[in-house]
Amino acid sequence: MATQAKATPRERLLEAAATLTYRDGVGIGVEALCRAAGVSKRSMYQLFESKDELLAASLEERASAFAVRLLPAADDDRPPRERILHVFEQAELQAGAPEFRGCRYLAVPIELKDESHSASQVARRVETDLTAFFRAEAGQGGASDPDLLARQLSLIFEGASAIAGIRVDNLAGLIALTVGTLFDSASVC
Amino acid sequence: MATQAKATPRERLLEAAATLTYRDGVGIGVEALCRAAGVSKRSMYQLFESKDELLAASLEERASAFAVRLLPAADDDRPPRERILHVFEQAELQAGAPEFRGCRYLAVPIELKDESHSASQVARRVETDLTAFFRAEAGQGGASDPDLLARQLSLIFEGASAIAGIRVDNLAGLIALTVGTLFDSASVC
Repeated sequence: MATQAKATPRERLLEAAATLTYRDGVGIGVEALCRAAGVSKRSMYQLFESKDELLAASLEERASAFAVRLLPAADDDRPPRERILHVFEQAELQAGAPEFRGCRYLAVPIELKDESHSASQVARRVETDLTAFFRAEAGQGGASDPDLLARQLSLIFEGASAIAGIRVDNLAGLIALTVGTLFDSASVC
Repeated sequence: MATQAKATPRERLLEAAATLTYRDGVGIGVEALCRAAGVSKRSMYQLFESKDELLAASLEERASAFAVRLLPAADDDRPPRERILHVFEQAELQAGAPEFRGCRYLAVPIELKDESHSASQVARRVETDLTAFFRAEAGQGGASDPDLLARQLSLIFEGASAIAGIRVDNLAGLIALTVGTLFDSASVC
């Protein structure tokens, strides 16, 4: 890729970690990561203390892109209901891609099976930030219980990522309708 | 364990595969599996063609226990609404255990990242069977759209497994309420 030629070794390692762990899982070896990044193992260990640290940094580095791809723009002045639906529309669009394997912030902690791992902590923070967005919008929209609605929306978000990621459901006609039912129940406008 | 002493090598391998992959992930090595089962690698390869086949067989072998632990008994004559809620109550109970890491039928395909893997296929069948249970009960309960409600319930089930498994939400006060809202919207009795 033309842009990669100018990327620093650190950027190339972060990119390789994000791409390869998403495709192959967190068990991917250091050698494969270094090969894909075109960086020696020695250089990698000068930049990152361990593969674990590289993995956590790659999740951190992707977090803002994750938010940009999902959340409505700050100046998007549609009502809260539509701003929340925007997130689910984006998620559904992404889930339709053939290479979709679920949200990385769900897959990585499931794979690591270690909630104290630095990458699991980054993932949990990203999930918590999304719930906080839902809560703020739910409050703006006059939800009867913004906390509950925010947790419900995160439940739907993760469930959708999970069932689409393992190809159990293609989400068609499912998500907007379910979210709409929860909105109505919480009297969100 | 006393009962393990009488188990056959095949049973011990299935048990080790189920226990260790749940705890450590599908990347667990053949040596570790054989050591835990007290079976030589040679014997393992006489019983199973590969670790992949052992993994698929272990998921298959656990499938009936999974159903027994979740589903209401056949002679449980409560209304469909309560029979469905029973599944979520059981799931919530299981999610409260300190060793809970999400449903294995969700975690294994997420980890494998290969929908054609025999273990992913077993997992998908187990998930589909659960959706079929929901659909049958939704139909019995007079749901306005039993197919939609069944997909919604599977969405909630997987979402709950996911967020509890990665410790983003403890599910307290969340699931029964959300399922109840969907029941009401579908006019289930």
